Amino acid sequence: MSFDVLQEKIIRMKNPTVVGLDPKPEYVPEHIRKASYEQFGETLEGAADAVFQFNKGLIDALCDVVPAVKPQSAYYERLGWHGMAALEKTIRYAHEKGMYVIADIKRGDIGSTAEAYADAWLGVTKVGEALCGGFNADCVTLNGYMGADSVNPFLKVAGERDKSVFILAKTSNPGSGELQNVAAGEGDTVYGLMADLIEKWGAGTEGKYGYTRAGAVAGATYPEELQKLRARMPHTFLLVPGYGAQGGTAEDVQYAFQDKGRGAIVNSSRGIICAWQKTGKNGADYQEAARAAAIAMRDDICRFIAIQ
Amino acid sequence: MSFDVLQEKIIRMKNPTVVGLDPKPEYVPEHIRKASYEQFGETLEGAADAVFQFNKGLIDALCDVVPAVKPQSAYYERLGWHGMAALEKTIRYAHEKGMYVIADIKRGDIGSTAEAYADAWLGVTKVGEALCGGFNADCVTLNGYMGADSVNPFLKVAGERDKSVFILAKTSNPGSGELQNVAAGEGDTVYGLMADLIEKWGAGTEGKYGYTRAGAVAGATYPEELQKLRARMPHTFLLVPGYGAQGGTAEDVQYAFQDKGRGAIVNSSRGIICAWQKTGKNGADYQEAARAAAIAMRDDICRFIAIQ
Repeated sequence: MSFDVLQEKIIRMKNPTVVGLDPKPEYVPEHIRKASYEQFGETLEGAADAVFQFNKGLIDALCDVVPAVKPQSAYYERLGWHGMAALEKTIRYAHEKGMYVIADIKRGDIGSTAEAYADAWLGVTKVGEALCGGFNADCVTLNGYMGADSVNPFLKVAGERDKSVFILAKTSNPGSGELQNVAAGEGDTVYGLMADLIEKWGAGTEGKYGYTRAGAVAGATYPEELQKLRARMPHTFLLVPGYGAQGGTAEDVQYAFQDKGRGAIVNSSRGIICAWQKTGKNGADYQEAARAAAIAMRDDICRFIAIQ
Repeated sequence: MSFDVLQEKIIRMKNPTVVGLDPKPEYVPEHIRKASYEQFGETLEGAADAVFQFNKGLIDALCDVVPAVKPQSAYYERLGWHGMAALEKTIRYAHEKGMYVIADIKRGDIGSTAEAYADAWLGVTKVGEALCGGFNADCVTLNGYMGADSVNPFLKVAGERDKSVFILAKTSNPGSGELQNVAAGEGDTVYGLMADLIEKWGAGTEGKYGYTRAGAVAGATYPEELQKLRARMPHTFLLVPGYGAQGGTAEDVQYAFQDKGRGAIVNSSRGIICAWQKTGKNGADYQEAARAAAIAMRDDICRFIAIQ
């Protein structure tokens, strides 16, 4: 239960990384875009098809070396409902290829609305007498600013369907400190208080590796905070964005892991899916380039940890 | 600019309220669901069609007495991409009927991702040489936990297209205090610091009524905090959820307004769209019931303020 499924995949592949599927249009090689536009026109439908074809190729190239993908909802919403259909298809295809899927949606809302979001992304929806699956990810990212009642509906559905969530603690972006690092509580910070809330919300849902269903997001770009959070959240699985293009290094992210290289997964998006932009081959080799970059990232991080 | 468009609609209609289009399946009268299921089956497509037909009827019944609608994204995401298509159609239909549309999405993410979200919900997306419109709301709700770089891309697109945003300050749900009311800064609270950030982020974008493009969400269910926020955020337009079903009263929400009944809009969802459940007519009268409830809400709130 909880993060067992993901932790097991990581141990089996000896790879604690996740590839962010954040397909900005310019990240998609021209030959793919051209083919989709020829079929569907320069429309949102065409762009969504290009994104799906790109993702499919990436998943094919990565599925035997990387345990998980993390599609970022924004890049699909940007293409309207056609984009959301491409996201559904991407999640389904990643599952077919045995990958764990973290939907990066950062939702957070009042209880009744959180229930609807939880059904949408982790659960099923009752229509008449039928149960219909929605996006059906294995895990989602959440924003806990609104408190426990915005998170509990997700934990409930996650419990019923053996899934999990990651809640924002300290994010990787330059402006994250503006609120998160402000002094709060007694000699503490906002992100520190959030960390305690996350441990509290998850308590009692530990799986066999000791982690609760309520994981946390802790950016690689703030290694000091990352270390503090690791120490403060012993039962919390960490999702670590910010490696690579955003500036985080393997040395930085090592602090996210506990004994035996457990308890964390490091994300890279651009560094993997745009690797083809550095080979000078105009994207014809985007699959090989992504695979090579993913292997290099794995090896880079595994210099500092030994996964068992 | 900024909230001028909305403020003008409010003044013209003498109605400072917005109707939340949060169509849980059980909120949709049976005759509508039945017709949609007959056409599309008990599927997400059928449920999405029912939701759109329901919304269309509500918009027809409300558009000459209520200035704005606020669809909550969760209830559309719950129906997968079919639901997102229904949301696009709902927004388009509300615009045809002259209504202002606040997409309640509560997004918040790092800069490059926030740009994609901003394009998705307020802007346009370039596909090849074509510019394609996405959901095209007039305004969105945001979560500012990640700081200025998660909000600025929205303010940029809002500036280019004369739109606005509402950022969560003090939310209406029971658990909102868990983080938001914690002591922070110097003798302050987390929500108080967020309020200052919102005033800061919006500064310099004031429209003719004095409000910036960066509005704030302040729940009716915490009238004391609502009063404090109103005083502390003189240039900030407020979106006030929590009236009606959640427990906020007209007496509570009066504190959200400034002189001449300006600077705030009060939301009700269930109280309006489920009004038919109290008439004993099984939903055949859902349009009349919603209209009567919307007029009653307007009159209730206008007992305490005089809009000019």
